Amino acid sequence: MPRVAIIGLGLIGGSLGLAIKASKQKDLEIVGADTYRRARKDAEKVKAVDETHGDARRAVEGAGLIIIATPPATVGEVFKDIAPALSEGAAVTDVASTKTMPMKWAKEFLPGGVSYVGSHPMAGKTETGAINADADLFRGRPWAVVPSDSATDAAIRSIVGLAQMIGAKEQFMSAEEHDHYAAAVSHLPIALSTVLFTMLRKSESWGDFGKMAGPAYTDLTRLLAGDPEMNTDIMITNREQVQHWLDRFILELKEYRDHLDGTEDEVFQRFAHGNINRTRFLAGEDLDLGPQNPEMPDSQSQMAALVMGPKIYERLREITKRAEEKSKEPRRRRR
Amino acid sequence: MPRVAIIGLGLIGGSLGLAIKASKQKDLEIVGADTYRRARKDAEKVKAVDETHGDARRAVEGAGLIIIATPPATVGEVFKDIAPALSEGAAVTDVASTKTMPMKWAKEFLPGGVSYVGSHPMAGKTETGAINADADLFRGRPWAVVPSDSATDAAIRSIVGLAQMIGAKEQFMSAEEHDHYAAAVSHLPIALSTVLFTMLRKSESWGDFGKMAGPAYTDLTRLLAGDPEMNTDIMITNREQVQHWLDRFILELKEYRDHLDGTEDEVFQRFAHGNINRTRFLAGEDLDLGPQNPEMPDSQSQMAALVMGPKIYERLREITKRAEEKSKEPRRRRR
Repeated sequence: MPRVAIIGLGLIGGSLGLAIKASKQKDLEIVGADTYRRARKDAEKVKAVDETHGDARRAVEGAGLIIIATPPATVGEVFKDIAPALSEGAAVTDVASTKTMPMKWAKEFLPGGVSYVGSHPMAGKTETGAINADADLFRGRPWAVVPSDSATDAAIRSIVGLAQMIGAKEQFMSAEEHDHYAAAVSHLPIALSTVLFTMLRKSESWGDFGKMAGPAYTDLTRLLAGDPEMNTDIMITNREQVQHWLDRFILELKEYRDHLDGTEDEVFQRFAHGNINRTRFLAGEDLDLGPQNPEMPDSQSQMAALVMGPKIYERLREITKRAEEKSKEPRRRRR
Repeated sequence: MPRVAIIGLGLIGGSLGLAIKASKQKDLEIVGADTYRRARKDAEKVKAVDETHGDARRAVEGAGLIIIATPPATVGEVFKDIAPALSEGAAVTDVASTKTMPMKWAKEFLPGGVSYVGSHPMAGKTETGAINADADLFRGRPWAVVPSDSATDAAIRSIVGLAQMIGAKEQFMSAEEHDHYAAAVSHLPIALSTVLFTMLRKSESWGDFGKMAGPAYTDLTRLLAGDPEMNTDIMITNREQVQHWLDRFILELKEYRDHLDGTEDEVFQRFAHGNINRTRFLAGEDLDLGPQNPEMPDSQSQMAALVMGPKIYERLREITKRAEEKSKEPRRRRR
């Protein structure tokens, strides 16, 4: 009977087990492992796997597909640990939020007859533990597929098949690309949440700030509620990329600071365009446009009317028209 | 019959109408005004007010309490407009998200026999318009009360009474305090959401970033989905305070960047303490503590175990113990 091993039975490991089971593949045995007893109990309770082991080596014996869902910083240790027990031809993946370090560890610790293909399902929720596992966690979500140079086609197909089977959409990329993109859309936000909370929390007027805080503050600091070990692992395994984006973000904040010294029309225009573009992005319509167009194409005008109502649409159209007329004036008149 | 006038029938104006009605005060007449026909129709549809007018002056005639719920930048214009029609002894408030400018406009435009007491209910949601009005929007939320120097006790009591009547909790403060605090917990987050979205949106690799974006990115950019006119008004009526906090945030981001060069324990400790403190803050337990204590008091340890599970609690305790032992070592041994 084909065997899948899931090492690490937290929220992601547990959800993977449930999702694979929900896909109703015939004759598939799902074996889980976690060094932590409570995690094994939780995974058993929600029936995420068919059996559990404390020893990962026991779980990978005879498995054709091994999924490592432990905290990112421990993936290398797990590779080292399971290496002697892996079957020839097995496909090994991990679902860590960073990919450069796992790729390096795979080269270092995994035996030659085994294929490593990194994964990163872009899915999650605030609650942790297999007890909160959700079979639909990956449905409709992107799944980064990061094959090693030596991975066989069969192993790559097996990981893509896993992603598709549980409703995710595969996206091929290199480990470096992955970590660059993930730092921007996922790890930088964690840093921003953290700094926004701690900056005010350490202030002597914290009591006053806290009393005034509404949903904006609660929501923007929510990523700090993620598992501290996970957040730590992300930062230390992707430090350079996160620091790169922190530097970029600081430059952008300085530019925004100066932007606020501009006219009311300029401030409004940026908010309005941002609102439209984000709405289109959430609707899956904005990704192939390239850089933001300073003029507003017709489709964008229509979206503006739809999203923000005719009043704001009119204002945006007026401002755009004024800006166009101004740009058509002869140069010396503008001095 | 006592008359309340609500000028501006958007989400907040409409919700105020519904909330006042839901409090079942006897013999209270609620009159609404909006220059915009669609807003009046929506307010009528959801029965937020008893009657509507296009002319604000008509609505305030004979009203003892006037609530201005128009965009922040227009509050001064409304004051100027309604001034001749206000009754002697009337209490005037506005619910704009900034308070320094409304206070200045009140002094400039409102007649002598009228009391101005600024308000800011710290409540809202992404949807706009009276059509999305919600009688429970203010329940349990803080309500900043900002009396002018010349406001009568009766007028102040009337605004506090309004807040309490609809379930909000009054917080007295000056206009300057309000704008300083609000810039930190509410307006800075709007700027961060905006910059996080536009920074990647204008990149040539936007398509790749966008495909990788998960809930972290969507949630942290969500404040950009707020009404662009409202966001603009907030920024231009509270520009200096927002810029002050942008400068502070930039310094904190630089410090965080360096913090990431520290040890794994240090990075973990900050995430863990932040997680605990934020959880306590959300539970309403953290506001009178003063600055974050580097040692972990017992109550905090218990919270850690509760929030993050025993595994992370153990790690945090170990690190704290190690740090304490290190600090007790004689100085020369630490060189």
